[in-house]
Amino acid sequence: MNQGFAPIGDVLRSAGTVAVLTHVRPDGDAIGSQLAMVLALQKLGKTVTAWNEDGLPESFAFLKGSELITKPPDEPLEFDTVLALDTAARNRLGTGITAIRTYKTLVNIDHHASNPGYGDLNYIDVQAPATGQIIYELLRDQKLPFFPEIAEALFVAISTDTGSFRYQNTTAHTFEVAGKLVEAGVDLATISHRIYESYPKRRILLLGQLLNEATFHAHDRIATFTLTEATKARLSIDPADIDGLIDVIRSIDTVVVAIFFEEVADQRVRISVRSKDLRIDANRICSTWGGGGHPLAAGARIRGTLEQVRTKVISYVSDEVLKYP
Amino acid sequence: MNQGFAPIGDVLRSAGTVAVLTHVRPDGDAIGSQLAMVLALQKLGKTVTAWNEDGLPESFAFLKGSELITKPPDEPLEFDTVLALDTAARNRLGTGITAIRTYKTLVNIDHHASNPGYGDLNYIDVQAPATGQIIYELLRDQKLPFFPEIAEALFVAISTDTGSFRYQNTTAHTFEVAGKLVEAGVDLATISHRIYESYPKRRILLLGQLLNEATFHAHDRIATFTLTEATKARLSIDPADIDGLIDVIRSIDTVVVAIFFEEVADQRVRISVRSKDLRIDANRICSTWGGGGHPLAAGARIRGTLEQVRTKVISYVSDEVLKYP
Repeated sequence: MNQGFAPIGDVLRSAGTVAVLTHVRPDGDAIGSQLAMVLALQKLGKTVTAWNEDGLPESFAFLKGSELITKPPDEPLEFDTVLALDTAARNRLGTGITAIRTYKTLVNIDHHASNPGYGDLNYIDVQAPATGQIIYELLRDQKLPFFPEIAEALFVAISTDTGSFRYQNTTAHTFEVAGKLVEAGVDLATISHRIYESYPKRRILLLGQLLNEATFHAHDRIATFTLTEATKARLSIDPADIDGLIDVIRSIDTVVVAIFFEEVADQRVRISVRSKDLRIDANRICSTWGGGGHPLAAGARIRGTLEQVRTKVISYVSDEVLKYP
Repeated sequence: MNQGFAPIGDVLRSAGTVAVLTHVRPDGDAIGSQLAMVLALQKLGKTVTAWNEDGLPESFAFLKGSELITKPPDEPLEFDTVLALDTAARNRLGTGITAIRTYKTLVNIDHHASNPGYGDLNYIDVQAPATGQIIYELLRDQKLPFFPEIAEALFVAISTDTGSFRYQNTTAHTFEVAGKLVEAGVDLATISHRIYESYPKRRILLLGQLLNEATFHAHDRIATFTLTEATKARLSIDPADIDGLIDVIRSIDTVVVAIFFEEVADQRVRISVRSKDLRIDANRICSTWGGGGHPLAAGARIRGTLEQVRTKVISYVSDEVLKYP
């Protein structure tokens, strides 16, 4: 599925115009990877734009150059090359891809196991803990521009997607790359402060409410959070405010699977599933409802009311969990 | 102040009996450093013991070999060499040092700036984010035994003392060392799971309650948690359950000072103060009531009811905070 870095380097060097895209509801890895590539390509003299359906989350606005990341325009445009980053499925590019009328080459760089390789060129490394780590390797391997602002963007990508170097996906090589990024000029104290100590008050108040209404199932091996549209409206919750809150219930010793249920538009419920046990595959659970992700972290959007979706998902996951005493 | 690693290596190699000590109320860096040294010296064929006043905290009992760390015996013993690790002042060794009748050489290895160099041999590196990082360098430099169980102990030391590679003290070299430790056999997923994802459910339920009753003052620049004796009894809260919860309100962007008020015995209230701004000195604030600590983290015990103590402390800290617009 991988054509290697060389043909990707060739396509990027020969392109005149490049659109750098990432998935809807972009997280730190999505934004960090997108920012690193747009900065590198700009430096290379390309006409480059970076879009995603939701634009730049406020929480990453501190990153230098991040203002280059916007929502897509209403009128479709054409590009030589489209670069899809950290996006497991083409439709997860959302209005980012529909705002592109024509392109010559679609390059797909990702670390999600479920990525089918929808690009003309693909580089899928499921061992990489973050797409940002692949971008680091691409830039160095292909001798593309690399400077402190890029290092900071990639550090954010890797730090956030490894839970600050805690998740299973973190390897000796990840630490080595992080060391190289710090050496290249990352202001680690400021970055940590902005990522991990600068949350809006509404996020913390929301956490209090979620905890108060948390439910536990299958002998406390499943824990759930539930977020209604009403609560989102009352606290003016942005999508980014929710990121990572599920880790709070996931951190309980008895919990093997944590599930976040979020009421979204069109009579659907978004679920995020976090597993601590490879035998209980979050990706497989979410595929049941047309979603996907990684073995330990996946998501889906399911039609139904909160109550309906909660009932069927908790029942399904309970059956899975109770297979392993 | 530093005699270098060579004379320390010589003393350890020539000793017959060694006592490895660390500070009272040992944290991850204390236990990880102590365990690494006791394992290395045991492998070297020494008669070695590892004590600290409080013994092995339950949360580190998962580390292989950790059963070697105990409380000191009642009857004082004699040793060739005493190794004091991660301990800023001799008296912080507590009953660990008073349980030693005689010794020939006291070796003091630490990273605290306030360490006066109380050893016969000293190695104080205030740039090191953790004593565990110094121990790694000592073992490698002096070609002392180094194997997976030692790597895991040192990884715990470094991970916990850097807030999982987030604090200012984390350098490119720290990442490099972490990478070497993972390469040497650290089971990162298991270690992270035991350190960061194995909290009792009661701690998380307590967090929900604290958040629901959190108060904000001085234009959201002060945030407080309040814990009553009744809540502690209802949720069977251990002192260790409370550790770090204050960081949740400290992580709000507007918050400069976070204060934890805990009702304790004898009509007193324990306060923990965390500042994000060096101009607002937590140590000075706490000294007002006979407490102390560091500029960004300090504590005190104050006589009075919760209501009385809250009123006077919040009023005092508000005045401090409002000096700086």
